[in-house]
Amino acid sequence: MTTNRQIILDSLPEDQLSEANFRLAEAPIPQPGPDEVLCRTLAIGAAAGTRAAIQGSASYAGAAQPGMVMWGEGVARVTASEHPDFAAGDLVLGRTDWQDYSVQKAGGLTKIPPGDDPPAYLGALGTNGLTAYFGLLDVGRAKEGETVLVSAAAGSVGHLVGQIARIRGCRSVGVTGSDAKGELLTSKLGFDAAVSYRDDDFRASLKAACPDGVDVYFDNTGGPILDSALFRMNTRGRIACCGVVSQYDTSSPAAGPRGVPGLLVTKRLHMEGFLIFDYADRYEQARGDIREWLRTGRLVNLTDEFQGLEDAPRAFVDLLAGGNVGTRIVRVSDD
Amino acid sequence: MTTNRQIILDSLPEDQLSEANFRLAEAPIPQPGPDEVLCRTLAIGAAAGTRAAIQGSASYAGAAQPGMVMWGEGVARVTASEHPDFAAGDLVLGRTDWQDYSVQKAGGLTKIPPGDDPPAYLGALGTNGLTAYFGLLDVGRAKEGETVLVSAAAGSVGHLVGQIARIRGCRSVGVTGSDAKGELLTSKLGFDAAVSYRDDDFRASLKAACPDGVDVYFDNTGGPILDSALFRMNTRGRIACCGVVSQYDTSSPAAGPRGVPGLLVTKRLHMEGFLIFDYADRYEQARGDIREWLRTGRLVNLTDEFQGLEDAPRAFVDLLAGGNVGTRIVRVSDD
Repeated sequence: MTTNRQIILDSLPEDQLSEANFRLAEAPIPQPGPDEVLCRTLAIGAAAGTRAAIQGSASYAGAAQPGMVMWGEGVARVTASEHPDFAAGDLVLGRTDWQDYSVQKAGGLTKIPPGDDPPAYLGALGTNGLTAYFGLLDVGRAKEGETVLVSAAAGSVGHLVGQIARIRGCRSVGVTGSDAKGELLTSKLGFDAAVSYRDDDFRASLKAACPDGVDVYFDNTGGPILDSALFRMNTRGRIACCGVVSQYDTSSPAAGPRGVPGLLVTKRLHMEGFLIFDYADRYEQARGDIREWLRTGRLVNLTDEFQGLEDAPRAFVDLLAGGNVGTRIVRVSDD
Repeated sequence: MTTNRQIILDSLPEDQLSEANFRLAEAPIPQPGPDEVLCRTLAIGAAAGTRAAIQGSASYAGAAQPGMVMWGEGVARVTASEHPDFAAGDLVLGRTDWQDYSVQKAGGLTKIPPGDDPPAYLGALGTNGLTAYFGLLDVGRAKEGETVLVSAAAGSVGHLVGQIARIRGCRSVGVTGSDAKGELLTSKLGFDAAVSYRDDDFRASLKAACPDGVDVYFDNTGGPILDSALFRMNTRGRIACCGVVSQYDTSSPAAGPRGVPGLLVTKRLHMEGFLIFDYADRYEQARGDIREWLRTGRLVNLTDEFQGLEDAPRAFVDLLAGGNVGTRIVRVSDD
């Protein structure tokens, strides 16, 4: 390959994002400067949170500009290195963006140890897994015997949250967008119960699925699910605010949850937003636990794959519509 | 006095509470049973939170019933005791309710030590002061050099929050319902700035009053002020949810805050509701600090007094309309 294929964010969406907002372009393969590393992308992970950045609101990644290469995390193979810590052939996790090649600062790369499955670094051993781990255990402080509720439960982060809750001895209840997804969670991933928010009687189903109330709610969605969850929380319950998927792909955000702040006071609830970067000094500790759970089969790293960089926009748009089960990955190269 | 005057909650309000919801009644003076104490009420404190209980929603005090003696905390003198820890003449704090005499379980009473001013137990040394203390320092974790914003800042709890923030070396900013109240906070109570939420340009005034953003927001109101405060919060800011005054006296509650959960995530905010009862084992430690601040004049216990039990409904209705500055007290007896 002599050119660097790139997916360009061609225009900002007016409302819902579509494939028409992207275009494929070609550029020369970049060259690494001093202390830099050239990486060939093997696979990228599609993350719903990136949508917020494009919208320009409720984002932690700054503002998106039309014409930029689309943001994204990927796993890659080092093809040339000007930094002593990396050598050609090394496998890494980094901000590859949606393209075949990227030049990286060494400090921004995570080396993937031999023996670990590289795509797992886009799932359980990557941002998704770390987000599930710290959000559930540190922000949510989930304890054995408690009930953990998670929204977008079949999603990249959600399916890991519910499984880690089970590993820690909690009752694990997932909210999904379909009964089929819920069935997968309970039959394959060990969730104790699942509820579809599209049920006519969602509130009653949620109540039935959580007979002892909810101690920890891991919120990936905001919106009406958060609204309903607040009414099910137990006294001194914790709500870990991870994402707001219900609000990313729209130009007309919903009203805030009616139970805030009234129910926070009467139930003494703790509600906390978090970003995973704040836990960077504990990533390796968390990866140690997660790696062991994967090895012993207690944790399943579910991936949902598309093939080819050119299909990344479709993979992403479908993800925002709730099409994925597990971590959505786009395979870019087998090298 | 041979009869026990009582203020009865005669009917539940349809919307705003009015004096017509109450009536004055007379009953025999009750007699204490084994281990009980008969108390003569000296003064009662009117607390906005009681309104929530009457409404029957967003309440931690249970449901109100027409015909009941109105709930309330008061300071009282023991007139007869069947419990060894109390003797006639002792001064106590307890749930006297709105009446001349009440029979109390000894365990529900707090003895007021000689030297302390009894009405201060309805303010800085009572529930209001303890709420300000634990909400600001434990829930809000206010630290020296930070900016503390408090709503209903001239109110029973708020005027103490801002002063304790100053004592702890914070910049102290109050939100009130009038410029006159704000002037009192800055000129008499040492607040650094005050903003009226009735200002046409409230958001701009709030921003100007908090040039370094807000690290701790002590929320007594909910509603639009919470909405605005969320946008001013600094990264890793804390919101102590104490009360929802904006929603107590209405049958049409406002929508939830638009910044929840989006801003909680992007700013990693911590939002927590609390009730003071959860800190009961540390009341005496807190009272030690507060007593010392009162003694040295660093903390001003502002009270706003009405005279006579029969005026309690008016005092309460006016409180809900924001008529008070400091802790509203109704003097019942000078005995």
